[in-house]
Amino acid sequence: MNKNTLTNIVDTTRSPYALLRPVPIERVRLEDAFWAPRLRIIREVTIPSQHTLLEETGRIFNFRRASGKVSGSFRGLYFNDSDVYKWIEASAYSYAYQPDERTLKMAMDVIDEVVAAQDEDGYLNTYFTFERRGDRWKNLRDMHELYCAGHLIQAAIAFYRATGERKLLDSACRFADHIAGVFGPGRRIGVCGHPEIEMALVELYRTVDKLDYLNLACFFIDSRGRGVIGGSPYHVDHKPFRELDEIVGHAVRALYLNCGAADIYAETGDKSLFDALMRLWHSMTERKMYITGGVGSRHEGEAFGEDYELPNARAYAETCAAIASFMWNWRMLLVTGDGRFADIMELALYNGILSGISLDGEHYFYVNPLADRGKHRRQRWFECACCPPNIARLIASLPGYFYSTSEDGIWIHIYAGNTAEIEYKGARITLIQRTDYPWSGDIEVSVNPEKPVEFSLFIRIPGWCGEAQVRVNGERIEDISKRIERGYIRVHRLWESGDKINISLAMPIEKIVSHPRVIENNDRVALKRGPIVYCLEKADNPGFDVWDIILPNDAPLSAHYAPELLGGVVIIRGEGLVINADAFGRRLYARRKDVKYEARRVNFTAIPYYAWANREEGPMTVWLRSPEKLL
Amino acid sequence: MNKNTLTNIVDTTRSPYALLRPVPIERVRLEDAFWAPRLRIIREVTIPSQHTLLEETGRIFNFRRASGKVSGSFRGLYFNDSDVYKWIEASAYSYAYQPDERTLKMAMDVIDEVVAAQDEDGYLNTYFTFERRGDRWKNLRDMHELYCAGHLIQAAIAFYRATGERKLLDSACRFADHIAGVFGPGRRIGVCGHPEIEMALVELYRTVDKLDYLNLACFFIDSRGRGVIGGSPYHVDHKPFRELDEIVGHAVRALYLNCGAADIYAETGDKSLFDALMRLWHSMTERKMYITGGVGSRHEGEAFGEDYELPNARAYAETCAAIASFMWNWRMLLVTGDGRFADIMELALYNGILSGISLDGEHYFYVNPLADRGKHRRQRWFECACCPPNIARLIASLPGYFYSTSEDGIWIHIYAGNTAEIEYKGARITLIQRTDYPWSGDIEVSVNPEKPVEFSLFIRIPGWCGEAQVRVNGERIEDISKRIERGYIRVHRLWESGDKINISLAMPIEKIVSHPRVIENNDRVALKRGPIVYCLEKADNPGFDVWDIILPNDAPLSAHYAPELLGGVVIIRGEGLVINADAFGRRLYARRKDVKYEARRVNFTAIPYYAWANREEGPMTVWLRSPEKLL
Repeated sequence: MNKNTLTNIVDTTRSPYALLRPVPIERVRLEDAFWAPRLRIIREVTIPSQHTLLEETGRIFNFRRASGKVSGSFRGLYFNDSDVYKWIEASAYSYAYQPDERTLKMAMDVIDEVVAAQDEDGYLNTYFTFERRGDRWKNLRDMHELYCAGHLIQAAIAFYRATGERKLLDSACRFADHIAGVFGPGRRIGVCGHPEIEMALVELYRTVDKLDYLNLACFFIDSRGRGVIGGSPYHVDHKPFRELDEIVGHAVRALYLNCGAADIYAETGDKSLFDALMRLWHSMTERKMYITGGVGSRHEGEAFGEDYELPNARAYAETCAAIASFMWNWRMLLVTGDGRFADIMELALYNGILSGISLDGEHYFYVNPLADRGKHRRQRWFECACCPPNIARLIASLPGYFYSTSEDGIWIHIYAGNTAEIEYKGARITLIQRTDYPWSGDIEVSVNPEKPVEFSLFIRIPGWCGEAQVRVNGERIEDISKRIERGYIRVHRLWESGDKINISLAMPIEKIVSHPRVIENNDRVALKRGPIVYCLEKADNPGFDVWDIILPNDAPLSAHYAPELLGGVVIIRGEGLVINADAFGRRLYARRKDVKYEARRVNFTAIPYYAWANREEGPMTVWLRSPEKLL
Repeated sequence: MNKNTLTNIVDTTRSPYALLRPVPIERVRLEDAFWAPRLRIIREVTIPSQHTLLEETGRIFNFRRASGKVSGSFRGLYFNDSDVYKWIEASAYSYAYQPDERTLKMAMDVIDEVVAAQDEDGYLNTYFTFERRGDRWKNLRDMHELYCAGHLIQAAIAFYRATGERKLLDSACRFADHIAGVFGPGRRIGVCGHPEIEMALVELYRTVDKLDYLNLACFFIDSRGRGVIGGSPYHVDHKPFRELDEIVGHAVRALYLNCGAADIYAETGDKSLFDALMRLWHSMTERKMYITGGVGSRHEGEAFGEDYELPNARAYAETCAAIASFMWNWRMLLVTGDGRFADIMELALYNGILSGISLDGEHYFYVNPLADRGKHRRQRWFECACCPPNIARLIASLPGYFYSTSEDGIWIHIYAGNTAEIEYKGARITLIQRTDYPWSGDIEVSVNPEKPVEFSLFIRIPGWCGEAQVRVNGERIEDISKRIERGYIRVHRLWESGDKINISLAMPIEKIVSHPRVIENNDRVALKRGPIVYCLEKADNPGFDVWDIILPNDAPLSAHYAPELLGGVVIIRGEGLVINADAFGRRLYARRKDVKYEARRVNFTAIPYYAWANREEGPMTVWLRSPEKLL
């Protein structure tokens, strides 16, 4: 294939209000023990096994049916086309990173089926064919037509950027043109019950430079909250977007909508959108987010709850919602260069997102509780299978989030061993990271420009890090805490090949507490080390029930690398007390004076939260009893 | 009206497998400061205001429409007939207790509308008329037809017993005959998605002595769990009833079903039903019940959660579910004479049920959280308005739950100042209770038979009571804790008029703890005194946020009667600490070492949980932080 394109995930190359420009997926080569194997598993296991499931569950059949190749009834849920599109997108990113004929062939075959199902007029949705043709665009609130269209567009862009192949992109443009002919000023006023189309249209505008698409995305944002789909908070339709001040409703809907609004801001600079986004960001990160970066705490409506409503065993925290938060925070980072957005991305990535997929790469959590009795297990698939291809596309695209460039220089957001070839103002600069991150906070970056070039290197100092050191060619930067600007240390110099930066991010084991209004976490702590949130699971602690543990304030804690465990993790060992819950017997309530607990000392092992439920079943908990010494 | 009937709620007078026989509503005259005013408010405020709402919301209109008196579309939800029936039932009980022409006239007018809407063939449901006539009995799982029929039958029985008037009873029998013609062995196999018909049919059998109705109730129990309505746990259709061992699914559905099964047991003695009921009772009371007696903790599906899943702020604990638990436990008490069932009734009554209605008698909770930030307020009505008429009928019928008789004597279950005229083996015995229960545990019962008569008096010693004394004509019964048999003290003698029993139930303030698996309540206590569960509410504690309080183990606590407060309540005063939650600022998570809490001493006031949200809005909590001293 004749490829002249680059696989940028969110292409802000020409966005006037974006500070940061992308470094595409194919320019980053992972050389680490954490992500490189995960991308390999996505490519070798996840993508092929999901392809099989798309076939087995009728999702590809539905396209063949729509194009008249086969007959029968539509299979599955009415929005299942979107799973196929997300899978294509995952395949595209994977191919961009590692061109692999098997992935390419699978994806192109599926694309052939998709394109064949498109109507003459550009419409494309396999549910609304034949007997349901007359129902097109009749129920925007519930039927996900524009949502599916958005995923088609994203898949088409990703595949085009990864391969240069226009077939699906042309199809997406025809559908987008059809949509632009139906909706818009002077045409029909409507919005989709499930946001997604907004960010897709902005990206399509960025890809084919057709202003209609950006305008239509703006129209969809502007038309929301005006009652055209019923005005419910669930659909984020209760207020015009610019008036939103609390993040509410279905979490994935709300966060995809924010992605679209942030994308529009990057193009238009509409400050009222940005202000609303910041209010929503504060609402989410300061009152409605799990320590894992998971969001949408409420099962009912897969929704954000009230402020501080963050139950642990009954956490919903859908994998897709954590991914959507990552996607939104990426866009916020691109327009601001502010590391607090990168902090939320990192938090979600290593915890609430990564928990969504098993170590074997073919089992998934839809729901990500922070405490469990052992019944909650990853599944091979779901009837509503949004999460599996979503996490596949996110991990497959990860190299595209490592770096950015700006007018002033090159930004490092994510740490992992890798070599990156970065274009900066016409020069090619090879950056090499050497690190065992996230297990170690020591990172060496060597900077290798083709020829000496002056620019700033923006080095992210994560918000979790209380003590950082940076050395440039061995020379320590003094007073570093004062030099951190919005989460980054800026090192400006004339860089020459072989220049070395050594970053040292102290990674003590931290006991984390919650805001007192999170009543479920009162008198509890969670263990965290670097970006990794820990949990206790039965598999490592067979001698007691991990829900019964109590952590004394002075409990000794130590970190150890366990290369053979769970793909290689740093575990935390400690000493705690366990109470004899059995003393309570069958009583559900008792007078305190009638209960005689006994506590015994135990040694415990904590593992990264993301890795739980990969072994035998049993209780798990993130938050450990550790009463405050206030009395 | 020519009344020869007695208003028994569950009439076990001739039930072969019931130990206890009813003492009807009209034989008990309340003379206390707790329940007598509440029954007056039900009669004077609740029943008339609900009648107005039944009119305003179209619920009575639907009957007029069905009978052709008016035209227009059906209004509201398809099961709204049941609200009208429950309101008639409430009116009947209220009238039985206090014959009141206004109540009678209102009820009879509504009954006229109901009966006029009945079809020639006996079918009666205002939703399935005209255009939807052809849909009758088509969707048993979802459409509540048999549920509505059950409520019609219960209303008809109550009204007949209260007044002697047969009009609605005849109508109910015609409908029951119609149903018996559709369903049953050799006819259609079906069950209702929402149980209710089962207990109604048993009661109709008891009322008109037609065995078909009992047989049909048995058929409905036997046909459940065999997949005829899809087999979901939500509908308690996942297993045959006799195989159930865990209480699951929609709480009201599950508990109404248990009522029906218990009623059948009372008639048939089918031990396999009783055994299943006991398994379900242990499952509920030992693992799935709030300290308030509220049940069904999960918003999703209004359902029982997993074992120990009892969130506080996100408690569902529907008022109807607590009422259903009361109804079921009453039936269990009737067949066993075991006070543990009376304990659950009392617990629910004074807490999780009574919280469902405002002190003014015209605002209702559907959901009863145990912690709240102040947004949750009682409403005048609901689109799905099951709870308001349900609590009206429960409170209106309360005098009927005070006493029972058995072969051996007379049973006292509920304490409150009252005079009861009890028929026992042909003799009339006047029992007079004098007490300030639930605020005081001192009760004087004077026994006044027409002539000396020998029998046992069974005096309930509540399970919450750690120290009871009973004196008979001044003489103390020794070793009382050893003499309690299944929750009752039996006093056998030849009773003469003027004999006096003095019961003294110690009512210290108790600190209650939960089973450690209820993780939300770890390191927390609730305050309880006698049957009353307490909470802290902002209205009494304006100087701090009640969610911030911490109760030291040695906190001084004292009880005080406050006659002017909330209709007259005993409050608990105490001393605690509050932390400065503001020290956390806008952070949601922080390193423990970075948070410096300060705690200050405060005096606090706790009120009965049932009375919360009757004043200005503000935070409320039942469970107070009080870390276990285990470390």
